[in-house]
Amino acid sequence: MSKEPPSAVEFPFKQIAGGVTAAKGFRAGAISCGIKNPTATRLDLALITSDLPTHTEACFTTNKVKAGCVRVSQQHVKVGDVRAIIANSGNANACTGPQGIADAKAMTKATADKLGVKMRQVLVCSTGIIGMPMPMQRVTPRIEDLVQSLKSGPAGSEDAMHAIMTSDTKPKTFAVEVECEGATFRVGGVAKGAGMICPNMATMLAFITTDAKIQAGELKKATNAAVEETFNRITIDGDTSTNDTVIVMANGASEVPLIKSKSPCTEIFRAALKHVMMNLAKMIVRDGERVTKFVEIRVHGAKTHRDAKAVAETVAKSMLVKCSFHGGDPNWGRVIHAVGYADARVREELVDIYFGGLCAAKGGLATSTPVKELEKVTAKANFTVTIDLNLGDACYNVFTTDLSEEYVDFNSSEYSAAVHSKRQTGLA
Amino acid sequence: MSKEPPSAVEFPFKQIAGGVTAAKGFRAGAISCGIKNPTATRLDLALITSDLPTHTEACFTTNKVKAGCVRVSQQHVKVGDVRAIIANSGNANACTGPQGIADAKAMTKATADKLGVKMRQVLVCSTGIIGMPMPMQRVTPRIEDLVQSLKSGPAGSEDAMHAIMTSDTKPKTFAVEVECEGATFRVGGVAKGAGMICPNMATMLAFITTDAKIQAGELKKATNAAVEETFNRITIDGDTSTNDTVIVMANGASEVPLIKSKSPCTEIFRAALKHVMMNLAKMIVRDGERVTKFVEIRVHGAKTHRDAKAVAETVAKSMLVKCSFHGGDPNWGRVIHAVGYADARVREELVDIYFGGLCAAKGGLATSTPVKELEKVTAKANFTVTIDLNLGDACYNVFTTDLSEEYVDFNSSEYSAAVHSKRQTGLA
Repeated sequence: MSKEPPSAVEFPFKQIAGGVTAAKGFRAGAISCGIKNPTATRLDLALITSDLPTHTEACFTTNKVKAGCVRVSQQHVKVGDVRAIIANSGNANACTGPQGIADAKAMTKATADKLGVKMRQVLVCSTGIIGMPMPMQRVTPRIEDLVQSLKSGPAGSEDAMHAIMTSDTKPKTFAVEVECEGATFRVGGVAKGAGMICPNMATMLAFITTDAKIQAGELKKATNAAVEETFNRITIDGDTSTNDTVIVMANGASEVPLIKSKSPCTEIFRAALKHVMMNLAKMIVRDGERVTKFVEIRVHGAKTHRDAKAVAETVAKSMLVKCSFHGGDPNWGRVIHAVGYADARVREELVDIYFGGLCAAKGGLATSTPVKELEKVTAKANFTVTIDLNLGDACYNVFTTDLSEEYVDFNSSEYSAAVHSKRQTGLA
Repeated sequence: MSKEPPSAVEFPFKQIAGGVTAAKGFRAGAISCGIKNPTATRLDLALITSDLPTHTEACFTTNKVKAGCVRVSQQHVKVGDVRAIIANSGNANACTGPQGIADAKAMTKATADKLGVKMRQVLVCSTGIIGMPMPMQRVTPRIEDLVQSLKSGPAGSEDAMHAIMTSDTKPKTFAVEVECEGATFRVGGVAKGAGMICPNMATMLAFITTDAKIQAGELKKATNAAVEETFNRITIDGDTSTNDTVIVMANGASEVPLIKSKSPCTEIFRAALKHVMMNLAKMIVRDGERVTKFVEIRVHGAKTHRDAKAVAETVAKSMLVKCSFHGGDPNWGRVIHAVGYADARVREELVDIYFGGLCAAKGGLATSTPVKELEKVTAKANFTVTIDLNLGDACYNVFTTDLSEEYVDFNSSEYSAAVHSKRQTGLA
């Protein structure tokens, strides 16, 4: 076997079932507490646990307004050896002040007591409406039932995934099995997120587990790199939530040798983690609230990475560009106008724009590519818009969606409806 | 009469008719050239002239992609003594490369020749679709007719205003007469702009004339200050066009003493110019493509002006916030989440949010104000959202709109439709 680590593109990742319980030594489960609506029976409280000690990394929203659960999890994850994640839908526990923090802590304490671990070994995540207090009277007495619901195998992961869904229409799960040095390890996860998505820790929850043995520092590097290239590159509506959280738990249960910097399995682990996150991130975008198009914006030839990112994000978030995607309209003029107002170095007369592989504009001017041909690209549900700035070597890509009338309709009347009916409609 | 200049709020501005021809010595007119659609008869080529020499200031889009007409006007306005503005709708002459610049120059030359002035004394503005060449064969031969159409009095201004409309549904005109030092001067303007509007020179055209006698340097200061506080504070969809232009022409025809720094009429002139621009800017927002709400976002208590501006703009551009406006939904949670991801210093536990005069959130937490009461505010077509960061003294305000399903529908299929029918539907 060659000593040189193969490039990422050659890694044969075997896709398997199981989400967060694919990796050895992890269990998951969920129950119905009626958090959003006391009489509803849908699963809304999830638990994911590791039977073995872990190294755990987490990334949280960059929004300065952070949910109570985020603030508590930020503190707990610093200590090390996280053993459980408790997560609910139906209420974001955000903008709930000191009471919200107390409630988030209480959830971790009740869970820790039942599992026989310390409070700080439990992370807590919530998703749903902002600004209404957690209905703790429906949660705390049920923790015992929640722990009882834990199972290994795909069913446990499925339940946990359903319990964290809000405006999602499709569950998001992905897992792989990877061979390295004669042994196998697994990486798998579940995610949720449909509205209020944007780079800078797109609003979503993603929980990923692995049985790889990995040093804490290496896990941190791998997680940050993978999040930067995946979850930080998706946008549905340009809004950044108060509750974004990605958690990666590694419990070392597999036989694969310890992963540290420059181990035989380091590169393949990083690639596998990125692969799982990329698939979850794409599922999130594809399931965006009332979206009909999944579009990759690729910027090449920028002077700096920062410029490439600014251009990609500006184009991906432009309302007029997104409307044109909705109509299947290859409107390069709107793309170039968004390029022009990005905070980046741009020379109009050097900009090339492609829909799929077809050049729509060269040097800032229309090409002779027939519009009918361009429309064949933009008529599809998935396509790429490539922008070459021809100023350097830096690249960046962002995954975005169209903007539909249904999105607007869906998002027009959430808060007052929730308050009036004394129920909560999830959004964060 | 007191030597102290009265504060802006005491100025009695008398609103009058006439738009750009209200001030003495200005004429305007328009003709139909069929720029967008060769068989259409709507007015689409406008001319505004001064019979006397002028000082003229102009502000242009900050988009790095600039229309050919913008580039030409930027050069011409530097020279001084502008005597005419030629403006067309139906084609933005943007992303048209060297040909576009040549066409813009040709428009100014043909106009200058007919008026007996120099090329650089003519500014040119275009609005409409990006990326298609100007149909010069329908324009250049008609310049003589255009000059013949010039008239003083409101009818000339009305025609010019109609000729520059694209997706506007309402014409935008505003003029005032002002007394100072025993004489009167006038300031009046016309504007257009409905989609693709955003601070940083919101996409629009605005032409303002005055017969005040004013030094060039003072006109520059007054124009920049007024634009910063008006046109730079409006957003409809967060996109910044390639064609934004504001032009202010001053020809000194009135008897009011020369305005320079610290003259008796300096303050009142600045206030009048701002007043005219503010009214035109608000008309632009109110006539936004398929908007139903006009909302002022006011930020107080920021640490710095830059922070106040960042928060106001971020809230005003948030898609989820705008959707909630559309639904008349007093969703302070969405407002605060947008506050939290602005590039500004924010402490969640200090943020207060008001709809109209009613406090919806205090210190980042819900107040006991009944949602029914908040809804009475957000049910109206016009309301204010006030955000107090409680960190300092800096303020900023932005005018924005809701986001409607009709906006999306309207903006979904412009380019290919235009190319297919070989007609142009205006957008920039």
